[in-house]
Amino acid sequence: MAHGRPEEKMLRTVVWKEGSVSLLDQTRLPNKLVYIRCKKYKDIVNAIKNMVVRGAPAIGVSAAFGLALAASTSKAKNAKDLMKDLDKAYWELRSTRPTAINLFWGLDRVMNKAKTGTNTYEIKGIVIDEAKRIAQEDIQNNMTLGLNGAKLLYDGDVVITHCNAGALATSAYGTALGVIRAAKEAGKSIRVIATETRPVMQGSRLTTFELRHDNIDVTLIPDTAVGHIMSKGGIKCVIVGADRILRTGHVFNKIGTYQIALMARIHQVPFYVAAPVSSFDFKSNLQDVPIEERRADEVLKIGKKRVAARGVAAYNPAFDVTPPELISGIVTEKGILTPPFESHIELLAGKLTLQS
Amino acid sequence: MAHGRPEEKMLRTVVWKEGSVSLLDQTRLPNKLVYIRCKKYKDIVNAIKNMVVRGAPAIGVSAAFGLALAASTSKAKNAKDLMKDLDKAYWELRSTRPTAINLFWGLDRVMNKAKTGTNTYEIKGIVIDEAKRIAQEDIQNNMTLGLNGAKLLYDGDVVITHCNAGALATSAYGTALGVIRAAKEAGKSIRVIATETRPVMQGSRLTTFELRHDNIDVTLIPDTAVGHIMSKGGIKCVIVGADRILRTGHVFNKIGTYQIALMARIHQVPFYVAAPVSSFDFKSNLQDVPIEERRADEVLKIGKKRVAARGVAAYNPAFDVTPPELISGIVTEKGILTPPFESHIELLAGKLTLQS
Repeated sequence: MAHGRPEEKMLRTVVWKEGSVSLLDQTRLPNKLVYIRCKKYKDIVNAIKNMVVRGAPAIGVSAAFGLALAASTSKAKNAKDLMKDLDKAYWELRSTRPTAINLFWGLDRVMNKAKTGTNTYEIKGIVIDEAKRIAQEDIQNNMTLGLNGAKLLYDGDVVITHCNAGALATSAYGTALGVIRAAKEAGKSIRVIATETRPVMQGSRLTTFELRHDNIDVTLIPDTAVGHIMSKGGIKCVIVGADRILRTGHVFNKIGTYQIALMARIHQVPFYVAAPVSSFDFKSNLQDVPIEERRADEVLKIGKKRVAARGVAAYNPAFDVTPPELISGIVTEKGILTPPFESHIELLAGKLTLQS
Repeated sequence: MAHGRPEEKMLRTVVWKEGSVSLLDQTRLPNKLVYIRCKKYKDIVNAIKNMVVRGAPAIGVSAAFGLALAASTSKAKNAKDLMKDLDKAYWELRSTRPTAINLFWGLDRVMNKAKTGTNTYEIKGIVIDEAKRIAQEDIQNNMTLGLNGAKLLYDGDVVITHCNAGALATSAYGTALGVIRAAKEAGKSIRVIATETRPVMQGSRLTTFELRHDNIDVTLIPDTAVGHIMSKGGIKCVIVGADRILRTGHVFNKIGTYQIALMARIHQVPFYVAAPVSSFDFKSNLQDVPIEERRADEVLKIGKKRVAARGVAAYNPAFDVTPPELISGIVTEKGILTPPFESHIELLAGKLTLQS
């Protein structure tokens, strides 16, 4: 591999092994590195809902493997009944979380492929192979995306990232953190500033963990310190991931992304989004995309400990929208998209149609 | 009292009683409402350092009572030795926290008054009386400030606040939350959106607690959701407190204030600061004011539980600076200052000199 780094040493988030799926339990990080073994598609449904696995690409891959488990465990005697079983699993997996587009993308891709099968044996093989292919492509795409993005970074740069768009948000390697990894592998020393990312603390718990795992310099800051740190200067750029990118260039990503993009614009810090083409939604309009609201307890409690007064309401949107005018570039495995995004994303969509 | 609300029902933060000081232990809130009894000035030193008591005005009042304890417990046989004891306590109390100006203001006011005494008996009386007067004036000033600020609010308004500039940050009643209280007492229904305020979570722990205590509608949001919520519209204004206001109108306040002010400006939401005149620093220049950096553990752990990976660095500035151009008005007990702040603050400083 061109990266001079054996793939085996990579932190793996979603692993298919002998008819089961091992998910790195992200609710236990950084204190425990344990995998949960999923043998039924329902296990995957629960794992996505409970954020055992999270991050748009990782959710897409896990959901695809959910269908693979539904196929491999199905007792259907004919193709029609098997497709019925798959359809049931499809709709359950689809309803786990509403915002990340990769979930629907991964599920649709597997289902469309399944439909080309003629008997149960063939369909099962197709579904499992397609899920494995999605997982493998995800890693390859991230590495290509990383190489594309690494050109933006120079030795000694300080980069802010939000949430976790890393190995733990994908099959492996990561998107925003894939760019950092590729820069490091190209011999550049990069210092990462990670925001905590309340309320689920993916920055504290996951980004610090995986960057330490790969020996990349990381400093954790509260979400409240972003503006202050930018005002002091010395930040090269912001790089974040995406849960869904519209054809207009609007980016749905973890709550807090929008305000970091605003602050970056005001402090003249370039703001980059790193995401695979599977995170693009070429069809939906801005007002049609649901922003998941998660339970108030994530804000009112930390772990099991109550931090707010009893009887208090909380508002807990999981995502926000960053408009294209705040974005300097979108790093994909096909290259870096620059403004005007609408026409460049149209080109990307066209290219994909041609390729498929 | 004009407020139609017996003072006795108020949440009290710092209470002088029979030669000791009771501090509401804010590290235990919202789960336990307990007071710590301080009998020596060293207890006050520790309470300020450990944030048992916090909030600029409350720190000022507590430090003044620290000197009262130093005076009342002093075994000095003459005025010179008593002043030596007071001076020792003064410097220890002064070094507890560097940013909030009220600490120095309260200590200096008591010490200057102490110097007018001629014998130990007289000095002890002067010091204790002056500390009690500071505490009482703080409550009165907050009520006047509240009445002044309440004019900015109308029935049904939604107001964002950050950190805790409430009863718990003062002797009682509060500054930013004093404005909310006064509006409520004038019959207006106000809905407060409180930010969590990582890392110490004064919003989650203290603001929700004291607003619930007074039956004021409050919704908690993560610090990451401020931009998103503003972009949806419907926010009347932001009101925060201050740890120090320079003659230029630069406001030192809890980390995260600056970025909220930036977002408020972009979303055309008025941004108000509520603080008593004792929070103004008419002398210092911007670059001379130290911004306290607190220990990394506040970010790396929550309570005793580690949330970030081992070996990770954290940057934990306790305050930031909001420049005057982002501020719509500064609510004080003398009235509401509006831009241009520099000349209006000069008037305020002049007026004070005339009055003293």
